[in-house]
Amino acid sequence: MMCLPPEVRADLGRFLATLEASSSIGKGRESGLCRLTLTESDRQMRDLFVQWCHEAGLRVTVDGIGSIFARRDGTEDLPPVLVGSHLDTQENGGRFDGIVGVLGALEVVRRLNDLGVATRRPIEIVNWTNEEGARFSPPMVASGCFVGDYALDWALGLKDAQGTTIGQALEVIGYRGEAAVGGREIDSYFELHIEQGDVLDRTSHEVGIVTHAYSSHGMLVEYRGETAHTGPWPMAKRKNALVAGARLLVAVDDLGWQHAETGGKATAARLSASPNKAGLLSDWAEAVCDVRHEDPEVAELMRIKMLRAVGEAGIRAGCEYRVLDQWSWGGDIFDKAMVDHVRDAVEKLGLNGLELPSQAGHDAYFLAKHVPTAMIFTPCKDGITHNNNELATPDMLEPGLNVLLHAVMARADRP
Amino acid sequence: MMCLPPEVRADLGRFLATLEASSSIGKGRESGLCRLTLTESDRQMRDLFVQWCHEAGLRVTVDGIGSIFARRDGTEDLPPVLVGSHLDTQENGGRFDGIVGVLGALEVVRRLNDLGVATRRPIEIVNWTNEEGARFSPPMVASGCFVGDYALDWALGLKDAQGTTIGQALEVIGYRGEAAVGGREIDSYFELHIEQGDVLDRTSHEVGIVTHAYSSHGMLVEYRGETAHTGPWPMAKRKNALVAGARLLVAVDDLGWQHAETGGKATAARLSASPNKAGLLSDWAEAVCDVRHEDPEVAELMRIKMLRAVGEAGIRAGCEYRVLDQWSWGGDIFDKAMVDHVRDAVEKLGLNGLELPSQAGHDAYFLAKHVPTAMIFTPCKDGITHNNNELATPDMLEPGLNVLLHAVMARADRP
Repeated sequence: MMCLPPEVRADLGRFLATLEASSSIGKGRESGLCRLTLTESDRQMRDLFVQWCHEAGLRVTVDGIGSIFARRDGTEDLPPVLVGSHLDTQENGGRFDGIVGVLGALEVVRRLNDLGVATRRPIEIVNWTNEEGARFSPPMVASGCFVGDYALDWALGLKDAQGTTIGQALEVIGYRGEAAVGGREIDSYFELHIEQGDVLDRTSHEVGIVTHAYSSHGMLVEYRGETAHTGPWPMAKRKNALVAGARLLVAVDDLGWQHAETGGKATAARLSASPNKAGLLSDWAEAVCDVRHEDPEVAELMRIKMLRAVGEAGIRAGCEYRVLDQWSWGGDIFDKAMVDHVRDAVEKLGLNGLELPSQAGHDAYFLAKHVPTAMIFTPCKDGITHNNNELATPDMLEPGLNVLLHAVMARADRP
Repeated sequence: MMCLPPEVRADLGRFLATLEASSSIGKGRESGLCRLTLTESDRQMRDLFVQWCHEAGLRVTVDGIGSIFARRDGTEDLPPVLVGSHLDTQENGGRFDGIVGVLGALEVVRRLNDLGVATRRPIEIVNWTNEEGARFSPPMVASGCFVGDYALDWALGLKDAQGTTIGQALEVIGYRGEAAVGGREIDSYFELHIEQGDVLDRTSHEVGIVTHAYSSHGMLVEYRGETAHTGPWPMAKRKNALVAGARLLVAVDDLGWQHAETGGKATAARLSASPNKAGLLSDWAEAVCDVRHEDPEVAELMRIKMLRAVGEAGIRAGCEYRVLDQWSWGGDIFDKAMVDHVRDAVEKLGLNGLELPSQAGHDAYFLAKHVPTAMIFTPCKDGITHNNNELATPDMLEPGLNVLLHAVMARADRP
């Protein structure tokens, strides 16, 4: 087993140059990015990324849902170590969320190339399609398909607000690949990511060793009522679906406040109603909401409270209700041996690391259910994310990048 | 003064034939209509209405905001008696709301023609543009311009959801007329309308003598917050504009329930947010809400409570708030002499009439501020309106139609 000497470091300048190139594709508000998945700017970013991978001597394949894999062969015919994240952003997104993980993986491979180091196992960089879910809901749909939790046909048929499906959008930008989606053995998965919280920044830690994930439960709810005139129609006869949706979202926000002192969150994320016009009661509404807590038992309690709020809101507004979809993430999902690789690298590099949970959802959550998985967090300024003011300075990024390099090397070259 | 003998009746069959023709233009859900203002179906309806007016020997003019006037000259050069309502509908609208008033006016004129009866004053049928406000907000914009309460330029610049202005939409359907908008003397205004409430139907009255109007206060409110990730962002830092909007709408609905036993209503009508997506806190929301009560003092109290709820919702969600627009309608607005014409006609015809307030908004409210105005209500089934199940049977329509005929004649021919 070849182990990188502790003094070996990633080339920060080269990594930052790729980050800067990425920051100029799909510019959004102020210094942010608006690079929604499978749009023209996403295509440009993908093309550049593929070009970089080819220049690094990697073999690039694209799977049937557009995820890009760039492979550096190992010395033995073993399952690969996957390393990556996503290059798509939110509509008012930042320059770091996801991007750091893909370009960090590229830097790891480039550095190993510089050193002429071979690994027993192949290393594959991956860029997952539609992590954000900002254009096509739900998020993380490609990693969900990769591990077999989502059906590919279902995912390809998901529509954006204009009615375009993922399948059609892939054709438009030329990224509907021929490789099978998943169905092959994977050794492990590493994902480097900005924390998307303020713990590391606030407590001045250089890098985060992600030990577990907040448990998160979300749901998509539909209310059906009746249209009527807002003037004469008596309160007692009203079945205003918009009111039902609003009551649910307020109850969910209240639920977040109930659990705020132990770090719980509950979010009223989306509410759509129809006809949703002055002068009319709405006969249809759809709401998306979720709850999150570090303690899985508390998260489950919050889920049950949210579910009861769905019914209560419907009944109070005189509307029928249906939970159209429910999803759950997180918990104690990361692999102990994989987290050890991360912890070992932090110690070997003499970094000031902190063990902490992940609070946001990541492709790593899907992978973790099927493949030994670990995540590494870099700090980010004030925890601001999904916002054009998202910021991770070079100082904040360098420690995590080096931890990724050493952890991937140790994992890929282990006996 | 010529007075119609009490045995004179409108031609119900002829009136119903026009209503049936109208019911086939712009068909909506089930038996309803979706004839949004200034659309192709509205144009077809307008063309047919203008043809009928020409056939009745009327002089048709269209004003600068598309309202159609069809004039039957009087024997003297006096200001005209206006009689009408609107031919546009809600998206999920009915076949009667507004339409009965315009086609009823047409039947009045046709019947006077049959009888060869002249009146001292001219009678003008009017079809007001965009009464519903379903495509362009606010509603009743053309009557507001006619009386000078709204500026014509402002109204022509109002946009629909696709960004088309009223001015552009008028050009598209060829109904941007050359006649001045208002600015001329009007003797009086009559509007026949379905009740849009269940009082007449429930109490088995044949016709409603509208004595006053519910006082209504509405507002358009904007909230501004900050986008952030729904996962890690702490509750205490959140500025979710969608939550602010939802809290306002729930408070408004609660306010309606507080006053329900005295017939008060408060409506959460519209909520739009952005980005309004799963995974994100919204940084913008806009809400429309209103309160209504028969007692103007209670309505004013409800308005103040609603206004305080605007601020409270914003503060609780950590968002900035602005009231972008406020409007008020109703009160003791109808002219006593005009209401007497209606009451006299009910008595003369031996009908079982009920004096009652109007609860919905009508073009008559704008007219009433400047011109002696009265309204006549027909019953409608269960008070259902702004809904494809809206229903007024021939039996329900006939008494009001005859009251309109006799009241208009008495007014137009008075000394």
